[in-house]
Amino acid sequence: MKILGIDPGTQVMGWGVIETDGDNVSAVGYGAIKVPDKLQPAGKLNLLYTELLKIIRKYQPDNIAVEQPFVARNVHSAFVVGRAQAVALLAAAGKKIPSFEYTPAQVKQRVSNYGASGKEQIQQMVKLMLGMKEIPQPYDAADALAIALCHAQESHLNDLISRT
Amino acid sequence: MKILGIDPGTQVMGWGVIETDGDNVSAVGYGAIKVPDKLQPAGKLNLLYTELLKIIRKYQPDNIAVEQPFVARNVHSAFVVGRAQAVALLAAAGKKIPSFEYTPAQVKQRVSNYGASGKEQIQQMVKLMLGMKEIPQPYDAADALAIALCHAQESHLNDLISRT
Repeated sequence: MKILGIDPGTQVMGWGVIETDGDNVSAVGYGAIKVPDKLQPAGKLNLLYTELLKIIRKYQPDNIAVEQPFVARNVHSAFVVGRAQAVALLAAAGKKIPSFEYTPAQVKQRVSNYGASGKEQIQQMVKLMLGMKEIPQPYDAADALAIALCHAQESHLNDLISRT
Repeated sequence: MKILGIDPGTQVMGWGVIETDGDNVSAVGYGAIKVPDKLQPAGKLNLLYTELLKIIRKYQPDNIAVEQPFVARNVHSAFVVGRAQAVALLAAAGKKIPSFEYTPAQVKQRVSNYGASGKEQIQQMVKLMLGMKEIPQPYDAADALAIALCHAQESHLNDLISRT
C-alpha cells in the first residue's frame, strides 16, 4: 500500500509518500510545495492544488492522510490551515482516493507511542522507521512522512482487529 | 458585468448571481447548495466544488466575490469556513475568474452604508436593491447576493476613482 501524507499549510505544504506491506515500510518520495508570497489567496490555493495533483499522478497513492490540527493557535491560523486542508481533501476526492484525517496528538501517539513527544523526537522516529540516514528535509516533509506513517500504523492495527 | 457572490459554509453554501451595467442591477439567479450530513469531509468539499463549477459554467460570471469572515465564533468554525472558502476560491481560480474577498463588515457597509446593520436589514436592502418582491430564499442565497452587491459597489467606486 502506498500512502501520501500531507502536512497542510498555505505557505509551505509538506508531502511524503511511503510504501508498506504491513511489515516493511520505506519512503518513496517527499518534499514541500512552496508558495510565492506575492500570489493572491486564490492563486496560492490553485498552485497547491495543481502541484498536489501532479504528486498524486506521479506516485498513485492508495490512501491520503492529512493532518487535522483541531487546536490552532488562533482563529486566523485556523482559517489558513482549514484552507490548506481543503485543497488536500479536494485533490484526494477529485482522484477518488480515500482520505483520512489525523490530529497531531494521534500522529505523535502512533509514530512514537507517546502522545506528548516533541516535534524533533517525531522527526527522529521518522528517520529510524524509514531507515533513512538523515532527518528528511525540509521539516515539513518529515512531518508529512510522520502523518503517512501514522496512517500506516492505524491501517495495520485495523487490519489486525478485523482479522480477529 | 456579472458577479457571483458566495456565502461559504460546508453544510450550506449560498450563491447569487447579479448583473450590473454600473447604473442598473438585477438578480440573475440564486440558491444554496446543501450538503448531506452523511458525507465524509472530503466528499462534502468535492460536492460543493463540483456544484460551484456547474453554477460558474451556467452563469459565466466575470468576477466572484466570497465572504471572508475574519472573526469566527471559534477556532473550529474558522476551520470549517476556511475550508468552504478554499473551495470557492479554487473553483474561481480553476476557471481563471478573478476572485475578491470581503469581510461581513465591508458587505454591511457597502450594501446598507452602515457597518453595524443586522442580518435582516441587509436582506431587506438586497430585496430593495434588486427590485425583488420578497427576500430571496433561503437566507444563505440572500447573503450571497449581498456579497455580490458589495463587490458591484466596490467595483463601481473603483471605476469612478480611476476615471477622476
